[in-house]
Amino acid sequence: MERYRALIEAHVERWIGELPGDALYGPMAYLMRLPAKRVRPALTLIGCELFGGRPENVLDEAIGIELFHNFTLMHDDIMDASPLRRGMPTVHMKWDVNSAILSGDAMLVKAYQLMGSNAHVLKIFNEHALAVCEGQQRDMDFERRADVSFQEYREMIRLKTAVLLSCALRIGACKAGAGADDQESIGAFGENLGLAFQLRDDLLDAFGDPAVTGKRRGGDLLNGKKTWLLIRGLERATDEGSGLLRGELAKPIPERNVDVMIEQLRGLGVEREANDEVLRLETAAFAQLDGIAVPDERKLPLRALARTLQARTS
Amino acid sequence: MERYRALIEAHVERWIGELPGDALYGPMAYLMRLPAKRVRPALTLIGCELFGGRPENVLDEAIGIELFHNFTLMHDDIMDASPLRRGMPTVHMKWDVNSAILSGDAMLVKAYQLMGSNAHVLKIFNEHALAVCEGQQRDMDFERRADVSFQEYREMIRLKTAVLLSCALRIGACKAGAGADDQESIGAFGENLGLAFQLRDDLLDAFGDPAVTGKRRGGDLLNGKKTWLLIRGLERATDEGSGLLRGELAKPIPERNVDVMIEQLRGLGVEREANDEVLRLETAAFAQLDGIAVPDERKLPLRALARTLQARTS
Repeated sequence: MERYRALIEAHVERWIGELPGDALYGPMAYLMRLPAKRVRPALTLIGCELFGGRPENVLDEAIGIELFHNFTLMHDDIMDASPLRRGMPTVHMKWDVNSAILSGDAMLVKAYQLMGSNAHVLKIFNEHALAVCEGQQRDMDFERRADVSFQEYREMIRLKTAVLLSCALRIGACKAGAGADDQESIGAFGENLGLAFQLRDDLLDAFGDPAVTGKRRGGDLLNGKKTWLLIRGLERATDEGSGLLRGELAKPIPERNVDVMIEQLRGLGVEREANDEVLRLETAAFAQLDGIAVPDERKLPLRALARTLQARTS
Repeated sequence: MERYRALIEAHVERWIGELPGDALYGPMAYLMRLPAKRVRPALTLIGCELFGGRPENVLDEAIGIELFHNFTLMHDDIMDASPLRRGMPTVHMKWDVNSAILSGDAMLVKAYQLMGSNAHVLKIFNEHALAVCEGQQRDMDFERRADVSFQEYREMIRLKTAVLLSCALRIGACKAGAGADDQESIGAFGENLGLAFQLRDDLLDAFGDPAVTGKRRGGDLLNGKKTWLLIRGLERATDEGSGLLRGELAKPIPERNVDVMIEQLRGLGVEREANDEVLRLETAAFAQLDGIAVPDERKLPLRALARTLQARTS
């Protein structure tokens, strides 16, 4: 990963260095310089290399994907009224809402500028970009609904977060000249890995070690945030006729007992089920990777990245 | 114009008909269906035909330009907190701010989808799209400054409104295979016409007939909105040592006398100067058109359109 990150960080700095001095570009540079894992652009480089291309040849597209991701963060943070991003003030807090709207808009144009004019690449990017917007729309719609099903939630998460990993890999593969079937396989790998990643996030919130995650144990649960675990937990509780979880949620936040809620999720079998699902998703991802006919050593970076994501505790 | 409009309206309806049912797309369809002059997409068709292309071949790009324009309206209306657009509720009023942000974002992606993968077209579109964002940024910055010069204002208006007319014409010309010089000329024609159009707008606000414009006489002036006329008027007043205009602006809005303000603009020679400038811009535009070596009858639609804009009283 370090090799890819170095390439990416250098290219991000080069890109920032070429921005005009206008006020419009300050928030972009600020957000792009916050410490980040750069998972998406790394996937573009890795996807390219997997099919025999040179990572250096897809740096523009990789940064384009990262710009798109950061554009969605800039606008999502307005919509969610989030004060912090990566531990630092969000753009709409540091500047103002209008600057964050407008700078985000220009950021999307800059992402397209980097994406170039390859018809296949643009087709992939356009479709996935719309899927991400649809995911965010559903996320907002779900906030106002009490009856969101587990399947609906899963599809929302797929659109909002997993498809961009798929998009990053596909574009790298496409630029390396991979065939349509191979692009499909590597995309499915990315999507399954993305879903597993998100579910693991939910699991860490409730069952992770607060000393390691750095977050309050069960913070999402306590706030009644609709996550994979909570939605599934409420479904299971209804099936089993248990009112404990719903009882806690009916209380004002300060009076909720998060330990009771976590115990309930365990008792309802939701923790086990979620762990099984993570395993199932990761297995499905690796099966897709196995099906791609390239020398095995080329698959090592993806396996290493996937293992890093699997082993994480924070 | 009617021939172009019919082509455009039919293509807009076809485009709307193919949108998915998601909540994300409702606001786009709503805004795109509000009655509009369709000047920008018409310019793309006309720019294509001018250089021997078929208008039917640039309908996607034309609608892409119109979508981009409407995307900027959707977001500008949030930033300006405008309740009405074309006499109807703005998207953020009819839905909410978050829907308007997100639907606007997706609208920009849809605009790119229509713009295709022609490298030259994309280069033109990217550059002009960024210019429009820079113009809006300056417009917002200027609201917080008391010392905006006439030159700065003019450059802001050029970026915010005139360059998109230029872009629309250039893309049509480019798709018809026009050479670089011809693209430059038709772009300059559009930019000058756009500046003239905006200045005429300001003139109509102060000196037009309210019975024809349907707006309150001097409404912009009364609200102290920074327009071409007011900024130039304040510059001239300073030169001439007159405090009348500034005196009116120092009063609360209900106490301002708009007739005094309009008389001042006349007395300071600003009305005459603005009329001269409109004439100068239109002459410059037509000189660019004259320089393009295509049969004269092909220039008729552009001359007709320009005359319509010149003759307008509302």
